[in-house]
Amino acid sequence: MKQLLVRELIGETLRELRFGQGRTLRDVSLSARVSLGYLSEVERGQKEASSELLAAICQALDVPLSQVLGQVSDKLSVAEAAQARPQVVVAA
Amino acid sequence: MKQLLVRELIGETLRELRFGQGRTLRDVSLSARVSLGYLSEVERGQKEASSELLAAICQALDVPLSQVLGQVSDKLSVAEAAQARPQVVVAA
Repeated sequence: MKQLLVRELIGETLRELRFGQGRTLRDVSLSARVSLGYLSEVERGQKEASSELLAAICQALDVPLSQVLGQVSDKLSVAEAAQARPQVVVAA
Repeated sequence: MKQLLVRELIGETLRELRFGQGRTLRDVSLSARVSLGYLSEVERGQKEASSELLAAICQALDVPLSQVLGQVSDKLSVAEAAQARPQVVVAA
């Protein structure tokens, strides 16, 4: 099973929050003072966000950083439980 | 008030977990296949751990990544609440 990476879950969570607010990449990148390309790469889990930029993006989204990390922790928890469970193979 | 950085809280949490297991930097760095200097810098919040290396360090500590991020989220939550609270100045 593919290993879930924290940066992918952080990116997914940030994107979900932005979508939930109906905001564009351009809007949030301007507000967070990060480049649009960088924000887009972070959201797609292709780039690690530094702690400073993660804080800036959360501030731009007006979401506490603790909430974002809490959601990431919850997603990881579900994935870890699924990986720990033995795979059930159903014969035809 | 100083902004708390995620990498500092991650480092602190990893160090607490290692101390709790009575293990040395050398032991955990060998097990995680990261250099001792790198692990030490991560623990001191001086270097961002990549997602891959964070996963390797958690595996070396035999602690789910979700637990580490959950603890970081909890610590941030406390700090955010403290920052939101108005400062009380007690006159002498």
